[in-house]
Amino acid sequence: MNTNNGSEESKGAEVSLPNSTKIYVAGTLHKDIRVPFREISLAPTNSTNGELEINEPVRVYDTSGPWGDPDFHGDVTQGLPPLRGKWIRERGDVETVVGRPIKPADDGWLSEAHAAHSSRKRPTPKLQLSTSNSEGRDVQSDNSAFGAPRKILRAKSRAITQLWYARQGIITPEMEFIAIRENGRQIENRESRIGENGSSNAQFTNHDSRNHLRFAHRGESFGANIPAEITPEFVRAEIARGRAIIPANINHPESEPMIIGRNFLVKINANIGNSAVASSIEEEVEKMRWATKWGADTVMDLSTGKNIHATREWIIRNSPVPIGTVPIYQALEKVGGRAEELTWEIYRDTLIEQAEQGVDYFTVHAGVLLRFIPLTARRATGIVSRGGSIMAKWCLAHHQESFLYTHWDEICEIMAAYDISFSIGDGLRPGSIADANDEAQFAELYTQGELTRRAWAQHVQVMNEGPGHIPMHMIKENMEKQLEWCDEAPFYTLGPLTTDIAPGYDHITSAIGAAMIGWYGTAMLCYVTPKEHLGLPNKKDVKDGVIAYKIAAHAADLAKGHPGAQYRDNAISKARFEFRWEDQFNLSLDPETARDFHDETLPAEGAKTAHFCSMCGPHFCSMKITEDVRKYAAEHGLTDAEVIESGMQEKRKEFAEKGGEIYAKA
Amino acid sequence: MNTNNGSEESKGAEVSLPNSTKIYVAGTLHKDIRVPFREISLAPTNSTNGELEINEPVRVYDTSGPWGDPDFHGDVTQGLPPLRGKWIRERGDVETVVGRPIKPADDGWLSEAHAAHSSRKRPTPKLQLSTSNSEGRDVQSDNSAFGAPRKILRAKSRAITQLWYARQGIITPEMEFIAIRENGRQIENRESRIGENGSSNAQFTNHDSRNHLRFAHRGESFGANIPAEITPEFVRAEIARGRAIIPANINHPESEPMIIGRNFLVKINANIGNSAVASSIEEEVEKMRWATKWGADTVMDLSTGKNIHATREWIIRNSPVPIGTVPIYQALEKVGGRAEELTWEIYRDTLIEQAEQGVDYFTVHAGVLLRFIPLTARRATGIVSRGGSIMAKWCLAHHQESFLYTHWDEICEIMAAYDISFSIGDGLRPGSIADANDEAQFAELYTQGELTRRAWAQHVQVMNEGPGHIPMHMIKENMEKQLEWCDEAPFYTLGPLTTDIAPGYDHITSAIGAAMIGWYGTAMLCYVTPKEHLGLPNKKDVKDGVIAYKIAAHAADLAKGHPGAQYRDNAISKARFEFRWEDQFNLSLDPETARDFHDETLPAEGAKTAHFCSMCGPHFCSMKITEDVRKYAAEHGLTDAEVIESGMQEKRKEFAEKGGEIYAKA
Repeated sequence: MNTNNGSEESKGAEVSLPNSTKIYVAGTLHKDIRVPFREISLAPTNSTNGELEINEPVRVYDTSGPWGDPDFHGDVTQGLPPLRGKWIRERGDVETVVGRPIKPADDGWLSEAHAAHSSRKRPTPKLQLSTSNSEGRDVQSDNSAFGAPRKILRAKSRAITQLWYARQGIITPEMEFIAIRENGRQIENRESRIGENGSSNAQFTNHDSRNHLRFAHRGESFGANIPAEITPEFVRAEIARGRAIIPANINHPESEPMIIGRNFLVKINANIGNSAVASSIEEEVEKMRWATKWGADTVMDLSTGKNIHATREWIIRNSPVPIGTVPIYQALEKVGGRAEELTWEIYRDTLIEQAEQGVDYFTVHAGVLLRFIPLTARRATGIVSRGGSIMAKWCLAHHQESFLYTHWDEICEIMAAYDISFSIGDGLRPGSIADANDEAQFAELYTQGELTRRAWAQHVQVMNEGPGHIPMHMIKENMEKQLEWCDEAPFYTLGPLTTDIAPGYDHITSAIGAAMIGWYGTAMLCYVTPKEHLGLPNKKDVKDGVIAYKIAAHAADLAKGHPGAQYRDNAISKARFEFRWEDQFNLSLDPETARDFHDETLPAEGAKTAHFCSMCGPHFCSMKITEDVRKYAAEHGLTDAEVIESGMQEKRKEFAEKGGEIYAKA
Repeated sequence: MNTNNGSEESKGAEVSLPNSTKIYVAGTLHKDIRVPFREISLAPTNSTNGELEINEPVRVYDTSGPWGDPDFHGDVTQGLPPLRGKWIRERGDVETVVGRPIKPADDGWLSEAHAAHSSRKRPTPKLQLSTSNSEGRDVQSDNSAFGAPRKILRAKSRAITQLWYARQGIITPEMEFIAIRENGRQIENRESRIGENGSSNAQFTNHDSRNHLRFAHRGESFGANIPAEITPEFVRAEIARGRAIIPANINHPESEPMIIGRNFLVKINANIGNSAVASSIEEEVEKMRWATKWGADTVMDLSTGKNIHATREWIIRNSPVPIGTVPIYQALEKVGGRAEELTWEIYRDTLIEQAEQGVDYFTVHAGVLLRFIPLTARRATGIVSRGGSIMAKWCLAHHQESFLYTHWDEICEIMAAYDISFSIGDGLRPGSIADANDEAQFAELYTQGELTRRAWAQHVQVMNEGPGHIPMHMIKENMEKQLEWCDEAPFYTLGPLTTDIAPGYDHITSAIGAAMIGWYGTAMLCYVTPKEHLGLPNKKDVKDGVIAYKIAAHAADLAKGHPGAQYRDNAISKARFEFRWEDQFNLSLDPETARDFHDETLPAEGAKTAHFCSMCGPHFCSMKITEDVRKYAAEHGLTDAEVIESGMQEKRKEFAEKGGEIYAKA
């Protein structure tokens, strides 16, 4: 494994997070829905009056899939069970087809002999899909590079996309699943919880045990409109409007439904992928599991070089989250890396190959038009998107408009037949602060809007990719133009990075921009790892990138006033205030690191129950003193406090007279 | 050393950054001024036409002091030379005094015998100040805990603060030093550079070698007003207005002048300090040097427990940056940690002790008034500031108004006599998202405004401390209220942290808030390390905190449109685009980490000159393809591009008619 030797990264994705239980919540409209959550159990509070106060467990969104469930005993050679298989078949609008035969070129080999020769040198792991999970996996066509049988589905006639259903007024199981998932802890008593024996009970409540805590922060939503309760109908309506997407290829039934839209929780994507230079298939599968353990909502497989098809097969079969790709990367491999030799036919064939494998969304750089390319010639950093560069090279070599643009409607037809979502690429995104928000970038964004509407006409779900390197004060303009020009289709940005000067720390330069643009309305944030601009991320980098982006996404949810966001902050702050160290660790985004950092200074086990911390020592602790303040207030009744309070009334008047707004917000 | 075993942290602060030269720029008004910069030399560009293009060296702000100059051969037992000693004496308004005698209690010992007994158990390093650097160091009073002779200065009669001089229209050497330092590369040809032999030359130019690069980003300054050139007179005027401060105790002549104000570069502070629980003096001195190597503009010594005086003496004598403290911490040690036993006399004595040592700014939590304390009783996390908690406890125990508030004018008198700046503490800052922007917080901020004006009346320089834990959408209100209520005195915030849920990563949660509030107008950002809430920072944590905050400060400078900020971004982006890997590393905030990350994937030396990187491999590189695009444009003349451009004209019209603003910004 290409990892640091840190103790943490040597732990695999299969290790559960501490004090956590995987729970499932059942559907109402669709009885077979089981929506996963991770529930973190907490210690009781030792009140100053000696009584124990129960702290309810905290339920959090969980992207780890069956891998995060200790009751699941699969392994990566088996793949995950096809959760959505029955839902897809029961809609009655798909058929089994004989898939496109896999060719040696799909994995970058010139011939069968070449492929065989290569695999002798380097043993390729076998993906042996068991027939015990036979739903949706009847032996039909031998379409796996590893010879495993898997059934390929395609639309019978019309579009079979979630957008199509939504427009018909149909609430799919995916939509209800998402409604439950997005609500998380919010819906009380009405939901049923599935116990370990599969039975339901309604005893679970998720009241915040400190009702007096302020949830006063209504947020500033910039036009987003998040309801207090996410209903299945709300999900449907947002999909129908094009304001949200559910990336859900019918050939990736293993994925757990999730939604990307600005009236929902902000999502994050993690990029993985081998390259011509380094890394292996096993490593990429482990990175995918690792990324979803820490909270990646989708994963993009950006593999290049050899074994692209095989790597992707492994990733998709094992992924509980939607998988995105940039198909032009594989197409380029098929023509030996010579962009000018790309053709529409090779590209189309690659789309179908990946559609049949189950890729959930495709990045397509169709907005890089011939006439925009000269706009980049005087840039500081030209064209930094790989997809954008490839298409620019092709356009100039042929002096023709991009085949992605000229064949857009045909691409839409393919997408509609498998329910693959578009992530319309930003091939001309700025690669430096100097190039931010320039003519080339905005010309492409404007074109993304046109492409969005054409895709919607064919019932294809769409999101738009955004930058890049943008200084803070220029971020909002990106969001505003995207909302206007792309008619509120979800925005999906790479960062943005707010300076150029910190290679090695670009997860931080970009988390700043990501949090801000998430607040302004971006629906999904593509992570940036510390290795950005420098090298390929290892497991530590993937985790660092995911955690930085979970922070950015959560900060955005708080700022937007998402009704469920502050719950976890309140729980961890209460634990912190009450010196429940274990609970503080367990409620954090990364319990292991929090615990390790604590123990570095105070390793003794007793220090984790002591009412002080290493910052101040036992005699000098601000939280301890605050406890004393409260105790004092309690001992003296509220009399003193009331006297002081009444004194404050005068102060209030005085402030008000001076024009201060100090109490306007109280 | 309490450090991780990472290779990097085992390197000391004395190791220079690569390809860097320490240079000094002379003053004009004051000829003996030598303003330090770090100049990073770059490789030439291999143009596509085969010619070599020279890349001018890049000059950056340098906080490392003499420690960062290979020609300086001092060591920590000697302390730094008294750079400002002559300037201070030549103003003729200070006198040498017999300092307050050092008592065992200053270091937390009950008696001389106790102190001696303790030092037998644990050898205390001797700070032997050489008399060779005798300027300002005549043997006068034995005021050091280590028996070293050092002259103590105090005002003869009136205030001797930079604010006093500024109000008289006097431009001090400190002010001119700062003007040169803040301009950095901007002033061309008019400045003189001091060569290695001490002679001046005017050959150095600092043109951006790619003049066509856009510096188009004017920024959004929220009322800040940064001139294109910082003049000594501008510095004076800002100080006189109270909008900026120069923390510069006359007993800390070793420090290099720096300014904190929102019309200047955003600064960062690093907290260090031993505690009752862990760490040693040597470690804290090394942390101070380490923090300033990476860019800390000031350092706060927050030591508690034993050896507070001695630790501080070592830090101040070796620090090229201003040192801040929270004197109540030491006062509390003197009363055995029992807040209720604090008295004004003990506190005043501590102020004088630290004033004579040379502390440049004091955090004083005088805004925590008795009547505000009950406002915190129902908070989620009560009072989390140590200083705030101590004063709250005292106020409640005595049921009296805080002695910091009732003795404010006397405190100001002491500050004015040594030119110590106030950092008026925010003892009621929120410790959780739930408590953000509440009544207690804003009541104190309003009081900070009153205290600011009273300090100004005595010519004392002032900044105000700010929060804390604040979600993104509530950050701006903090800045707006502070500007209004505190009459534009510089704001100095801790983060703010934008979520509570990421202990172990609070340098990131807070860098988000810090960048934003820096953009809005905060003058100095107090760093937060990954150990926040968990333990004491080691060297790695200090560096991680400093780098995260250099990123936040620089992102803020860019967003504010600071005229000198984008220069470094442009230089690194040009190096990146041209595959000058070494230059990209050397121009980054942390060259070592950038190089290590690159080499982790491509260790071969040749990979650092190769025109490709590990992300895409040799055949598939977007920057390579962009080069081809330019070559193509060059080969075909601009004809094709022009044709395409003219096509764009029509598109422009079309966009304009549709109401798009796409080219409004061009």
